[in-house]
Amino acid sequence: MSKVAIVMGSVSDMPVMQEAIDILKQFGIDTEVDIVSAHRTPEKLFDFSKNAHNKGISVIIAGAGGAAHLPGMVASMSPLPVIGVPVKSSNSIDGWDSVLSILQMPGGVPVATVALNGAKNAGILAAQIIGSSNKTVLDKIINYKEGLKQAVLDASAKLNK
Amino acid sequence: MSKVAIVMGSVSDMPVMQEAIDILKQFGIDTEVDIVSAHRTPEKLFDFSKNAHNKGISVIIAGAGGAAHLPGMVASMSPLPVIGVPVKSSNSIDGWDSVLSILQMPGGVPVATVALNGAKNAGILAAQIIGSSNKTVLDKIINYKEGLKQAVLDASAKLNK
Amino acid sequence: MSKVAIVMGSVSDMPVMQEAIDILKQFGIDTEVDIVSAHRTPEKLFDFSKNAHNKGISVIIAGAGGAAHLPGMVASMSPLPVIGVPVKSSNSIDGWDSVLSILQMPGGVPVATVALNGAKNAGILAAQIIGSSNKTVLDKIINYKEGLKQAVLDASAKLNK
Amino acid sequence: MSKVAIVMGSVSDMPVMQEAIDILKQFGIDTEVDIVSAHRTPEKLFDFSKNAHNKGISVIIAGAGGAAHLPGMVASMSPLPVIGVPVKSSNSIDGWDSVLSILQMPGGVPVATVALNGAKNAGILAAQIIGSSNKTVLDKIINYKEGLKQAVLDASAKLNK
Amino acid sequence: MSKVAIVMGSVSDMPVMQEAIDILKQFGIDTEVDIVSAHRTPEKLFDFSKNAHNKGISVIIAGAGGAAHLPGMVASMSPLPVIGVPVKSSNSIDGWDSVLSILQMPGGVPVATVALNGAKNAGILAAQIIGSSNKTVLDKIINYKEGLKQAVLDASAKLNK
Amino acid sequence: MSKVAIVMGSVSDMPVMQEAIDILKQFGIDTEVDIVSAHRTPEKLFDFSKNAHNKGISVIIAGAGGAAHLPGMVASMSPLPVIGVPVKSSNSIDGWDSVLSILQMPGGVPVATVALNGAKNAGILAAQIIGSSNKTVLDKIINYKEGLKQAVLDASAKLNK
Amino acid sequence: MSKVAIVMGSVSDMPVMQEAIDILKQFGIDTEVDIVSAHRTPEKLFDFSKNAHNKGISVIIAGAGGAAHLPGMVASMSPLPVIGVPVKSSNSIDGWDSVLSILQMPGGVPVATVALNGAKNAGILAAQIIGSSNKTVLDKIINYKEGLKQAVLDASAKLNK
Amino acid sequence: MSKVAIVMGSVSDMPVMQEAIDILKQFGIDTEVDIVSAHRTPEKLFDFSKNAHNKGISVIIAGAGGAAHLPGMVASMSPLPVIGVPVKSSNSIDGWDSVLSILQMPGGVPVATVALNGAKNAGILAAQIIGSSNKTVLDKIINYKEGLKQAVLDASAKLNK
Repeated sequence: MSKVAIVMGSVSDMPVMQEAIDILKQFGIDTEVDIVSAHRTPEKLFDFSKNAHNKGISVIIAGAGGAAHLPGMVASMSPLPVIGVPVKSSNSIDGWDSVLSILQMPGGVPVATVALNGAKNAGILAAQIIGSSNKTVLDKIINYKEGLKQAVLDASAKLNK
Repeated sequence: MSKVAIVMGSVSDMPVMQEAIDILKQFGIDTEVDIVSAHRTPEKLFDFSKNAHNKGISVIIAGAGGAAHLPGMVASMSPLPVIGVPVKSSNSIDGWDSVLSILQMPGGVPVATVALNGAKNAGILAAQIIGSSNKTVLDKIINYKEGLKQAVLDASAKLNK
Repeated sequence: MSKVAIVMGSVSDMPVMQEAIDILKQFGIDTEVDIVSAHRTPEKLFDFSKNAHNKGISVIIAGAGGAAHLPGMVASMSPLPVIGVPVKSSNSIDGWDSVLSILQMPGGVPVATVALNGAKNAGILAAQIIGSSNKTVLDKIINYKEGLKQAVLDASAKLNK
Repeated sequence: MSKVAIVMGSVSDMPVMQEAIDILKQFGIDTEVDIVSAHRTPEKLFDFSKNAHNKGISVIIAGAGGAAHLPGMVASMSPLPVIGVPVKSSNSIDGWDSVLSILQMPGGVPVATVALNGAKNAGILAAQIIGSSNKTVLDKIINYKEGLKQAVLDASAKLNK
Repeated sequence: MSKVAIVMGSVSDMPVMQEAIDILKQFGIDTEVDIVSAHRTPEKLFDFSKNAHNKGISVIIAGAGGAAHLPGMVASMSPLPVIGVPVKSSNSIDGWDSVLSILQMPGGVPVATVALNGAKNAGILAAQIIGSSNKTVLDKIINYKEGLKQAVLDASAKLNK
Repeated sequence: MSKVAIVMGSVSDMPVMQEAIDILKQFGIDTEVDIVSAHRTPEKLFDFSKNAHNKGISVIIAGAGGAAHLPGMVASMSPLPVIGVPVKSSNSIDGWDSVLSILQMPGGVPVATVALNGAKNAGILAAQIIGSSNKTVLDKIINYKEGLKQAVLDASAKLNK
Repeated sequence: MSKVAIVMGSVSDMPVMQEAIDILKQFGIDTEVDIVSAHRTPEKLFDFSKNAHNKGISVIIAGAGGAAHLPGMVASMSPLPVIGVPVKSSNSIDGWDSVLSILQMPGGVPVATVALNGAKNAGILAAQIIGSSNKTVLDKIINYKEGLKQAVLDASAKLNK
Repeated sequence: MSKVAIVMGSVSDMPVMQEAIDILKQFGIDTEVDIVSAHRTPEKLFDFSKNAHNKGISVIIAGAGGAAHLPGMVASMSPLPVIGVPVKSSNSIDGWDSVLSILQMPGGVPVATVALNGAKNAGILAAQIIGSSNKTVLDKIINYKEGLKQAVLDASAKLNK
């Protein structure tokens, strides 16, 4: 079955990126996780990006902070959909640098950007991408959304009790 | 085959959103295009969002400007991947409102956001999503990227002639 | 008598929104409070928004954070005045996303936006709206403002003692 | 019947503020319009703000740009609901000053802020405030929203013809 | 001799504004300090602003946060130079609202704005204004600057010892 | 009598700075005008700043754009009050760089900052500083403000005719 | 002698980047100019970056706009000093994306960033870097600065004639 | 051999600037460190800037916060390459003032700006500048980058063990 690769620029991004791993596990989707730094391991970046689509990977999630070039550089070399997670790292200016350097890709090379530190949503989006051609996963998404709704209704019921 | 739905909040978004339609046509992917205003036609928003995945649609592209709620509201009701295009409409504060009200979705309901006015990239991303489970489309993406590269190399050759 | 509905996107918004409840109680105005998530309970959002004006409600206060769509979506479906409270939630970029996605509504669908985390002012504004056609409430507003003034004068007197 | 006062800081704000006058006329609501500068005619500001509620006015719309103090200062002296319109005047820094100096009022003194240059929405909001206690006006609001919807549906039909 | 009035919008601004009082005392310049809220005590604001120049006051320092209207409103009614101190109050959006609503005054009504929380500099600026027509105070300013220089030279000497 | 020095970083700042010259002429206050570039003529900057207070100058107005160091550097070497005019020059990022590099001076070295391109207000502020110890100029300020008021009242009368 | 390489992400950056070429010619420094797109020609990016220091190049100037990854990616693979020019391209959000995605590089991989569209300064900085070990070039820099000074003094003389 | 001068505006910048000193020591490059305040010791600023290139210094690193004029003023008087470190000091508005007042230098006077608090990168950049004409230092840079890569590969290996 389809697999999701989750890469991040630094091991310090792991606390944020773990949420993507966790939610994909919850959807029963296989992941492979690695540290690939655009700025410190460019050869690994090339090797990973150019070959991912030949290794059973369907979607790539890439997280990075500051001048975050990892998602865009992976997208420049892979034909797969790349989801970018702007990480509010310690060297970031309130997260604006992370967001803008992932979101504002030039015409021809999109990155599917999610909210600042939004790794959980990156995982859900990866599942939705797989689900768009896989009825089993699509049904899991539908169930998941049903669960979100029920949690709000429960909170509402508790509030008005 | 998979179809991409392209919706926008106002007919005034069409000049921006046309680029998504054009690039998808170039990839040979069917589109259906409509105007769905979150704020003026909420019933149509509901109807569209709840049923898209049952009508042969695989990916939804939604464009809107200002307090841009269309992409997020479609995402709240559809299990499909939703790509959001922040449009720099005339009532926007330099595009920041469009970007932030599409990007910063809460946990559980992702929108795959592309650059400000980045409808072309939204179309490419939709094709990549389809391509992630469709070898023919994936190959078209690979070819497309090859074309991007060649255009730069040609410009470089011309410059250094 | 007129009633004010106070809705919020998540139970985590309650610490902020409680101030609206408290000040309306101080003005002797009835409230009904509920959790209505635009993104997780869209059906409840529809049901609430379309019927509020038929259930004795005069004003709606809606609070949400991040890509805050609740106030605008309620406003799209209710003919009542809707007051939006941008909440600086944990997933917000310094509150800018909350502010802009509530404030920058398109022509035709206003949201009366108050300051970031300004739930108390939302409550006062709701009272002023009721007071604009209700002499008893208007007088309470006048008294309340008199109290604000007296508190400053007392602080001034204490300072210069 | 209820009347809406529309004041602005400078005659140069009139092109923006005219939209509030026009939409209120469309709803059949009486308006009185004046130029009241917080910074150049403070006595007139005081006189206007302290007496508006005794002269048949139900709602005040105040528009200003740059360090826009008019809406907040009117709100400090009137018990009526005050709607603030941030005007993107020529001396404004992209409208941010106008927005923030109207929106970010301290606890106790709300201003119902609408979008940058959103005078039309200010007029609609004023009508909604009157409509919250006036069935005739409420029905006009409901009709108006019906018209917004129909315009989108017509544009959609034309697009898909 | 010339006196400097120091006013602030709320007693909560005192920790910031105290620095202005302290530095003026250091320069031997008399101060009078009061709480004057533009939004809660508008009559006091009028009374203070219109009469300050007739009561032996030469310069006014006004501090406020959020939608900070106090400095601009004092400036609208007093012919004296008004120094504005943007306070980063708890309800401020990172201080931007305080800064912009004090700095961006319209043509005709200047406020001499200092840095965010820059009350100390406001005091020095007030002394410089008095010093511009008072040789004794001017000499104190010159001495003060000499002291600043010496402190840096001492730190430098210590570093390189 | 007191004289105001007006310096600017580049001859290209003259269209903005001319308004300071004009309004001071209107108040009958002598000016001397020069181009002093902090970055290109540092020796002239030193010479000017260190001697201005010995040459009959009471107030200095300094205008610059981008990384605008002129006002702050003059203030570092002159005991006189320095008014800074942030100029929105062609190389500026929407004026933010000009504003922040003039406003945010460190403790000890204030610059009295006015609005972006606010040279007219810089001139008025200089007059107010002179007027704070000169009854004739103070009366001119009072008259000037009276004129501002009358212009608004005239515009109001014309509107309501 | 030392050579400066000037690369840019797109031929559309040439009008901005030409200023770097021109000023280096003025200093008599050889340049080689090419188009190298991080996102469209990653192999060329690798080849160029890894070999530049072995081909007689001493300094690299890289210009790009939007999510501008070129300067940082060159810096990740070259041991040479890399100067980044943020270009305000048509797809940029007021230049902020270009600036932040070049400036905010992580620890270990610096990019020497100049002002938005500051290609001329990039050229001067490259000359200064060469001049730091080359007396002839250093003297040219000193002369160049002398010329800047003289131009201001001439403008000043003309103004005061 | 070449020496790097490291200056900072205040002793409070030392915790940030120490990283530049440490990394240069690691590269075996001599440093001289001093406190030079543009605003408090302008004479020392002049003396230092005008003479650095005659005292064996090849590169200058200057760090400052808020309205940070030190790097630009040093650059105005020295022909050497000047690296600016924007420091997020306590009086800074989220670092934006520090960044913009260093980065946005006018044409003719570049400052090589690094990331907010990026003193380590300033040190590396200084080493790269020296390395551009010094094979020994260049090889150290190449080794340093190799070390960065190895650290990421080790972290990756540990993660996937």
